[in-house]
Amino acid sequence: MDVHESIEDLRAGLRSRPHPVVLVPTMGALHEGHLSLVRAARERAGAAGTVVVSIFVNPSQFAPHEDFDAYPRPLLQDLDLCRSVGVDVVFTPAREVMYAPDASVRVLEEQLSQGLCGRSRPHFFSGVCTVVAKLFHIVQPEAAVFGEKDFQQLAVIRRMVRDLAWPIDIIAAPIVREPDGLAMSSRNQYLDAESRRQAVVLHQALQRAREAVLGGARNPQALREQVVAEIQGAPLARIDYVEVVDPDALTPLPSIANQVLIALAVRFGSTRLIDNLCLRKLPA
Amino acid sequence: MDVHESIEDLRAGLRSRPHPVVLVPTMGALHEGHLSLVRAARERAGAAGTVVVSIFVNPSQFAPHEDFDAYPRPLLQDLDLCRSVGVDVVFTPAREVMYAPDASVRVLEEQLSQGLCGRSRPHFFSGVCTVVAKLFHIVQPEAAVFGEKDFQQLAVIRRMVRDLAWPIDIIAAPIVREPDGLAMSSRNQYLDAESRRQAVVLHQALQRAREAVLGGARNPQALREQVVAEIQGAPLARIDYVEVVDPDALTPLPSIANQVLIALAVRFGSTRLIDNLCLRKLPA
Repeated sequence: MDVHESIEDLRAGLRSRPHPVVLVPTMGALHEGHLSLVRAARERAGAAGTVVVSIFVNPSQFAPHEDFDAYPRPLLQDLDLCRSVGVDVVFTPAREVMYAPDASVRVLEEQLSQGLCGRSRPHFFSGVCTVVAKLFHIVQPEAAVFGEKDFQQLAVIRRMVRDLAWPIDIIAAPIVREPDGLAMSSRNQYLDAESRRQAVVLHQALQRAREAVLGGARNPQALREQVVAEIQGAPLARIDYVEVVDPDALTPLPSIANQVLIALAVRFGSTRLIDNLCLRKLPA
Repeated sequence: MDVHESIEDLRAGLRSRPHPVVLVPTMGALHEGHLSLVRAARERAGAAGTVVVSIFVNPSQFAPHEDFDAYPRPLLQDLDLCRSVGVDVVFTPAREVMYAPDASVRVLEEQLSQGLCGRSRPHFFSGVCTVVAKLFHIVQPEAAVFGEKDFQQLAVIRRMVRDLAWPIDIIAAPIVREPDGLAMSSRNQYLDAESRRQAVVLHQALQRAREAVLGGARNPQALREQVVAEIQGAPLARIDYVEVVDPDALTPLPSIANQVLIALAVRFGSTRLIDNLCLRKLPA
């Protein structure tokens, strides 16, 4: 496995690597969720292709009050994990490799990024789009893998790729969960024991919502209230948002027809967790 | 020469074309200035490489009150001109090929695009960056050629390529002028006879400024006033801006040291013309 810290070295290293090249962009602190993205990348690349993982905690997607400095950076452990799942190339640039001191160009998505997480994190998706655009130009992959846990991010990246006419396949990988149902996240390690115990309520609430919808519930407002009430049963949970939207447009649904996304962000102490449930092809 | 209207056809056509691929993005209404860009592209591509010209009047770089509808579109004449200078491939997409009805992604440059033309055309550079980003992804060239007449555009594109880590060489081609000195522009054909006659004052004023700087003038304010006064000698000229700035940062110079850009935009009737003079490596 090659590890490159500079764009020049990465490009030189990739020149001799077989195509297709499939990229998994990460901020490190890798867990089983990331490894499932790597497996999806390997499936797309084939045994002969090249799987590239980037590890970069991107400052431009954190607001000043957010956890950029505290974000975990266990690089050696991450590299061991990458080796263990057969990653070919890791790109782990320093901040100054990715951003010139006078950097002045951003990529902006202005519809799908407005609601949900975009409301409480207004700079987040512009930061994500900009850094992913750079990574795409640096690595030049045929495909890239993103997790469905960050459902809105996946939608925004797909839109960016469509609107900027990028010849890159975006592959979605399903949410990976802990045994008790909590969606895997690098931020789960911030949780104290009691918060960690209560955080399972997010998945439980989404599971009940799934049962309700599959049982015929079609009123978005009632569904949202059910999820909110269930989460509020966990005393440490502070809801950022719970929304019932169309999974393509990410806009509120007047009523649930054949598809629905229930997306939520909830804080436990200073830790913000997200989760979602997407149901498509519902019976009328 | 191949002419493609769809992204799919263009990509299929380029697959069998030899590299390097060099792109000349244009809005059509081609004149000798554009042909000089094509010649620069051929020089970079070599006889064996591929020169691609895109012809697309990009709606997103026009404000509602500007001349998008009136902008000349002499397509067949443009194609003849392309053939005459050995262009290999022309890409001439319709608006809906380049923009989905719900397009929501923009590329934004936020320093170099603020002054000069950015002041009176606030959406211009974001429109240019966005469409050039798309064209780069569609054509995937090794290099692209832009004219120095649009000096600020060239600087903004270079910055975009740098900040988004694009492996594309940006080649600058010098301004091409009519025999009397007027910089060639597709918009010159809008000018009535008297405006056309008076428009030569732009070049004359820049030439006098060149003589002044080469003669030792180092005061930006005095230089600007000299250029303004000379242009105001043409009764039909209405100055949009005349600025004396650093040619890299495009910001005002406290005093002229070893380099200077004099950039201007002037209206004759409803026609807005731009021109500039860049002097580098000045003696102390």
